Amino acid sequence: MGDLEIRAAVTDDVPAIVSMLADDRLGAQRESPDDLTPYLAALERLTADPNQQLVVAVREDRVVGTLQLTIVPGLSHKGSTRSIIEAVRIHRDERGSGLGTQFIEWAITESRRQGCRLVQLTSDATRTDAHRFYERLGFTASHVGFKLSL
Amino acid sequence: MGDLEIRAAVTDDVPAIVSMLADDRLGAQRESPDDLTPYLAALERLTADPNQQLVVAVREDRVVGTLQLTIVPGLSHKGSTRSIIEAVRIHRDERGSGLGTQFIEWAITESRRQGCRLVQLTSDATRTDAHRFYERLGFTASHVGFKLSL
Repeated sequence: MGDLEIRAAVTDDVPAIVSMLADDRLGAQRESPDDLTPYLAALERLTADPNQQLVVAVREDRVVGTLQLTIVPGLSHKGSTRSIIEAVRIHRDERGSGLGTQFIEWAITESRRQGCRLVQLTSDATRTDAHRFYERLGFTASHVGFKLSL
Repeated sequence: MGDLEIRAAVTDDVPAIVSMLADDRLGAQRESPDDLTPYLAALERLTADPNQQLVVAVREDRVVGTLQLTIVPGLSHKGSTRSIIEAVRIHRDERGSGLGTQFIEWAITESRRQGCRLVQLTSDATRTDAHRFYERLGFTASHVGFKLSL
């Protein structure tokens, strides 16, 4: 397979990103790939925020993965900054290619570069394959993740 | 008990905040209340970020609670913005007073005001009392929270 590039997402990447968000057992019910308006507005807001990085993985000019990295300063842990990984999606053609590992390793390296002391993420309790994947990468399933829809 | 005020944290609140962070089974091992320098630097960084709110609950001129609310725009869920609650601490004199409930309800109301569609938080798997508390407030323990220390 060709070389992988990981870079900031731009407007032209939005259709491919939304398509990956929707091509998912849980995402299929909650995305609207036929109307990109809300996604484009969200990208604009993300791009304006220096603590947000929405990135894509590109191989042979195709977007094959996406994730969002958020930098969160805070007082706890002696004023430590942490990062949060959200919305990780790998194109189905790339599953098993090692892209997931490369991608999370990129996020860890970038978090370290920005002075974070902790990387965190939550994964739906039903995604047991993802849990094994994060544990292999050194993450500890030490927390319970709570959500409240508004 | 006197009226409760919830407001943005300022420099003068830092000793009381750090004292609450340290007065905790898990926090006791990881905080340094004798050296406030890193906490003051973190407060400065938080105050400069419009997507961060570090707040305190004040009763009769005493800081009796703290939490951090982070607003995170994103593409998933049709471009939804979500909020993340971190570092919730209630002074031990106030436990059982209903402050925890008022405080989380404040965070939910503020998240809604800022257009969030989801509020999320993680809680250490050993804090089972906290889990029941969040479930009573309507949160669902749908996710596993992973952490990696750097």
